[in-house]
Amino acid sequence: MKMIQTPVKGMQDFLPEDMALRQHVLGVIRDTYGRYGFTEIGTPAMEHIGNLTGKNGGENEKLIFKVEKRGRDLEKSLRKIREDETLGPEEAGTELSDSALRYDLTVPLCRYYANHKNDLPTPFKALQIGDVFRADRPQKGRFRAFTQCDIDILGDASVMAEIELIAATSDALRKIFSQAGVYGFTVHVGDRRILRAMAKSAGFTEDEYDEVFIILDKMDKIGPEGVREELIRAGYDPQKVDRYVGFFLQYGEAEASDPAAFIRKTCGDAIEPEAERELAAILQAVSGMIGSDITLKFDPTLVRGMSYYTGTIFEITIDNYSFSIAGGGRYDRMVGRFCGQDAPACGFSIGFERIITILRDLGWKPDGSMVKRAYLVDLKSAQTRIAEVFGYAQAQRAEGACVIVQPLKKNAKFQVETLEKMGFGQILKVYGDTPLA
Amino acid sequence: MKMIQTPVKGMQDFLPEDMALRQHVLGVIRDTYGRYGFTEIGTPAMEHIGNLTGKNGGENEKLIFKVEKRGRDLEKSLRKIREDETLGPEEAGTELSDSALRYDLTVPLCRYYANHKNDLPTPFKALQIGDVFRADRPQKGRFRAFTQCDIDILGDASVMAEIELIAATSDALRKIFSQAGVYGFTVHVGDRRILRAMAKSAGFTEDEYDEVFIILDKMDKIGPEGVREELIRAGYDPQKVDRYVGFFLQYGEAEASDPAAFIRKTCGDAIEPEAERELAAILQAVSGMIGSDITLKFDPTLVRGMSYYTGTIFEITIDNYSFSIAGGGRYDRMVGRFCGQDAPACGFSIGFERIITILRDLGWKPDGSMVKRAYLVDLKSAQTRIAEVFGYAQAQRAEGACVIVQPLKKNAKFQVETLEKMGFGQILKVYGDTPLA
Repeated sequence: MKMIQTPVKGMQDFLPEDMALRQHVLGVIRDTYGRYGFTEIGTPAMEHIGNLTGKNGGENEKLIFKVEKRGRDLEKSLRKIREDETLGPEEAGTELSDSALRYDLTVPLCRYYANHKNDLPTPFKALQIGDVFRADRPQKGRFRAFTQCDIDILGDASVMAEIELIAATSDALRKIFSQAGVYGFTVHVGDRRILRAMAKSAGFTEDEYDEVFIILDKMDKIGPEGVREELIRAGYDPQKVDRYVGFFLQYGEAEASDPAAFIRKTCGDAIEPEAERELAAILQAVSGMIGSDITLKFDPTLVRGMSYYTGTIFEITIDNYSFSIAGGGRYDRMVGRFCGQDAPACGFSIGFERIITILRDLGWKPDGSMVKRAYLVDLKSAQTRIAEVFGYAQAQRAEGACVIVQPLKKNAKFQVETLEKMGFGQILKVYGDTPLA
Repeated sequence: MKMIQTPVKGMQDFLPEDMALRQHVLGVIRDTYGRYGFTEIGTPAMEHIGNLTGKNGGENEKLIFKVEKRGRDLEKSLRKIREDETLGPEEAGTELSDSALRYDLTVPLCRYYANHKNDLPTPFKALQIGDVFRADRPQKGRFRAFTQCDIDILGDASVMAEIELIAATSDALRKIFSQAGVYGFTVHVGDRRILRAMAKSAGFTEDEYDEVFIILDKMDKIGPEGVREELIRAGYDPQKVDRYVGFFLQYGEAEASDPAAFIRKTCGDAIEPEAERELAAILQAVSGMIGSDITLKFDPTLVRGMSYYTGTIFEITIDNYSFSIAGGGRYDRMVGRFCGQDAPACGFSIGFERIITILRDLGWKPDGSMVKRAYLVDLKSAQTRIAEVFGYAQAQRAEGACVIVQPLKKNAKFQVETLEKMGFGQILKVYGDTPLA
């Protein structure tokens, strides 16, 4: 059979320079989060299929790569789908698989916490870096396998969790981008409770929220008039819609500087006082921590896709780019689905691939400060000197230098040029009589 | 549906202390190999199923986790297996899948090299660290998902490739284990060409080699008499078998110090003179590089499982353990299956999970040299001081300390003890009037 040279559709090979950039950024992330006391954990890329299809993954559940059962389990399932031809591809596919590749790190984290909580401190501050898989339609910057970096705080119901997550993520992003001369972030903070209270106060009912929020989420793309039109097209009472969209139209500079007044005005009695107090505490503490180069604002239009969020939600955008580079929020009712008992939980996920895409497009590279030396051995005249050359190389490596030893090629000029491009500053051709020291 | 708390069968969750150990060892590996000029690359965990079932994976091909096709492809395949009930589970499973999880890093590396060779230097020194998946029967130290660390040199037909691989891997292993006070490695070097020549000279025919070598490979477990019995039981002529086993019986100290004489004596004309010369050059150069604390020896019983090896093969064992902790060799004819044109290739793979198992069993931990400080905020009296405390924390983090801020719990004694166990040396309870500076 002919072998295929390209990677599986939508997945990436990383060249050495790509990998150096990725490892560098991961190093900054690990170092920064370590200072905030986040400890790294690991979970397998494969997860029980039932855990992934339990409505914790939202739209992502449609994008699951299912892994086939094996042995007798596979035989049994094959018999079943052959006997019951009414099973559609979706059901048959699920019948044939018992596990699947994870589409995010949040579901595995909740399973992990349920499994190990007796061995973990409370609150537990976790850093998880790993690959996730989604059978999405590939496009620029969107892959079918990609790296996620999540921090989560489990077991802390107080706003201190939100504050730490936002401060740590802002800090990490600033360190990553300032090296490349990129500044200008905005931290958007919202709250699912405020979102719901505004919808309630406009007259929407609970069962309408999901659809209303999906449309509201398009605000930055289609504007308030677009949101209004879509809501009416979806069949909602124009009076309700006008009242709702009106809330956002009256949100300006004055409201941004006094979120509490805006919330009272729009939500009325529908808001839990606690939500308002917590938002204020988060905004106050974070603004003192993140530094004046990062903008912090309450954003009532912030939705965040996943329906599992229960309280504060947040997102970080970068000037001149139309997408967010980090997002997260509080999800107090997901751990309970694994534990049987709820535990407060809050997380922030960095859009690692987006960051890499931006840095690559800027042509930015981490600088290697290592001494790099190459010995090119002429195998005709210096064949017997190989051991001697390697001995020299070894001593220099022990001192921290990067040293390579290669056969000298016929086209020595091209060989030297290639090595120079790779950053080798000291290149020595070794013939029978070349002194090494 | 009830969620499952444990990981998928045979796979591992990593607690923070596990992960710290793994990251530390990976750091040593990356640093060491970097000094030898190996550059890290990355390939996806998923691979085309045809690439994985093309006989490059030996026994591992039976352990493949297959990923299901999707959409119309899945529908078509379902129809096919429903129409043709003669398709067994193996064929039906393959029909239903178009990709699978990789079982090693060598097949993806060859695909990668074929795909990118115009963008890569020659010789290309690659480091690849990644997870691989095998549906093996789980047991202590053997998992269904595990990390591999491979270095490979592509495009160098000279012994310089072998020398570098062996020196670099010995160096990395020494650094990893010496920190834990573990010494005593043996580097075993053999050669597939010598292995074949010895078998030929004993009278075996080419088609018998594979089976003969599988039995020879058990030498360290069942001894020469055991090998002899198994070969005879397999139906081989006792005269041939006695001659063959006799070769190994006469291998003692004297032969180990003069491999050339041993090879001439046992292989006679069957050996290519080049194989003998190369072995001598490798042993000479490596012995000058690895240091006197590591034993280096020619091992004529070394087989290495994979049939794709074409020349030198090597393995590193550690005293007092019955298994090897690194293995590899030259495989000059595998890249050609992807490229259409052969390229010399040689690789060495570290048994990462075995190393971790040994270090864990020894109870060894990397020491964290970071200053670790905790502020425990009494939310009753110091609620309004949260922003102030976080400001302090932030300044100390900027100086490199690890600082955490937590709500003070009712059971403060237990909270403090837990933090002390986690390495927090400075713990301050913050009430309404506690000075911070």
